[in-house]
Amino acid sequence: MMLVNGVPQTLISASDRGLAYGDGLFETIAVVDGVARHWERHLNRLESGAKRLGIAAPSPAAWNQDLSLALGTKPPRRGVLKLTLTRGSGGRGYAPPEDVPPSRIVGLFPWPEWPSERYVSGINVMLCQTRLAQNPALAGIKHLNRLEQVLAASEVARQQADDGLMFALDDRLIESTRANVFLVFGQRLLTPRINDCGVAGVMREVLLDCLPEAGFDLEESTIDVTDLTRCDEVFLTNSLIGLWPVRQILGLKPRLMRPAPVTGRIRELLAARRLLP
Amino acid sequence: MMLVNGVPQTLISASDRGLAYGDGLFETIAVVDGVARHWERHLNRLESGAKRLGIAAPSPAAWNQDLSLALGTKPPRRGVLKLTLTRGSGGRGYAPPEDVPPSRIVGLFPWPEWPSERYVSGINVMLCQTRLAQNPALAGIKHLNRLEQVLAASEVARQQADDGLMFALDDRLIESTRANVFLVFGQRLLTPRINDCGVAGVMREVLLDCLPEAGFDLEESTIDVTDLTRCDEVFLTNSLIGLWPVRQILGLKPRLMRPAPVTGRIRELLAARRLLP
Repeated sequence: MMLVNGVPQTLISASDRGLAYGDGLFETIAVVDGVARHWERHLNRLESGAKRLGIAAPSPAAWNQDLSLALGTKPPRRGVLKLTLTRGSGGRGYAPPEDVPPSRIVGLFPWPEWPSERYVSGINVMLCQTRLAQNPALAGIKHLNRLEQVLAASEVARQQADDGLMFALDDRLIESTRANVFLVFGQRLLTPRINDCGVAGVMREVLLDCLPEAGFDLEESTIDVTDLTRCDEVFLTNSLIGLWPVRQILGLKPRLMRPAPVTGRIRELLAARRLLP
Repeated sequence: MMLVNGVPQTLISASDRGLAYGDGLFETIAVVDGVARHWERHLNRLESGAKRLGIAAPSPAAWNQDLSLALGTKPPRRGVLKLTLTRGSGGRGYAPPEDVPPSRIVGLFPWPEWPSERYVSGINVMLCQTRLAQNPALAGIKHLNRLEQVLAASEVARQQADDGLMFALDDRLIESTRANVFLVFGQRLLTPRINDCGVAGVMREVLLDCLPEAGFDLEESTIDVTDLTRCDEVFLTNSLIGLWPVRQILGLKPRLMRPAPVTGRIRELLAARRLLP
């Protein structure tokens, strides 16, 4: 099921600037029992990304209508909703054209049935060679310029790891190819700052909002590879996986606790509040 | 006139990875009297970009057929041919799917009729605030992740300049929003190294090949903003504009010579060898 500007359609203009320049944004949203989880947060991030890029953001009403059409009267028990917003078609060269309506592309896809042990025992991650370039102008937003993630995900596929951790060009740990990362030191939690590269994930934002008020000590910080060898637990978050513990970091000798007690408590807290997909 | 995988068509799949992630490459080629200028160099750059990104490059035969179909039996006297190559459709997430054919998108567009004074008296350029992020993995190739150029071109449009110079995050001059840049100091020419960001333009490559053997002293170098205030001439090159002198750099007090004798000699040399569009 795909909608282009609200109309069922699987094709878009070959002149769309999303294709030409990656000139747009996207959101990947878990749908559970007919509900798009964290819908408001996703729309907010999309709107703030549009503002950063100078793209006219469609109204929430337009997205609501797309949501309603895409899910229909008999939504699947679980699904993945993807919203893409581009600057629209045309313009001579890079300069954004004036008075061109943006393109809204909405698709509903099957839920990826990940093995249940990923949620329980955790995953194997590798350290990717592909680095994240630093540019504050593009940091945080979920734009369509994702070649670094594509190259890093190729590394992960070659190594048959479950995911890969990515570092900025200056060696700071930033995120995984598709998730944000949290490190646990005793009772203290750290997550990389997303100020000059990386995506500020919606699930990361949920944790930053909820954990401190639930009594957890969580801080955004500068983190490097040696922190990965010293911490007690590592976990990844995104809107689809929710929260996955990291079991092993290939090529490092971390001393990760098994089971991971703090990760477990956080999972329970998020599940009790119905914040996980 | 547009072709998608060799078939006249103006639409592409909304699942194309070119749209989803900017997962692809492009070339913009000047067509003059039915001839695609520097066709071989453009195909070579596309192929080496595809190799870098791990995209299966179509055969030159496929591109030749597209060229023939796009230009037809009565090609315009001048036109712009754009080749886009993406990794194709699909794949779950960032990881490149296996056994998916790449997409070839070819379009022929009207020649942009720039005012003739741009070629003769030169252009006004500004210094863009938008920086280029550094990532050796993506440097040099003409990939579809072009948000930095889009943001910089918006600055240029707002200032009503003709183009804008772009700097890496570490303050080195790299290129303009859509062209490579050359600085003249006496009889000596410098152009920025393209090793960790920027596009290695086809016209830049032509100059790097031709000028030294014609007796010019040309070197790739590290260049910063103070060099712009000290040099005698600045010019820009790309496949469509050919070569434009810079008349003025907004916000700087350069001492640019008018007319620019070295730039003029280079233009004459390139024109005599039929290397300009």
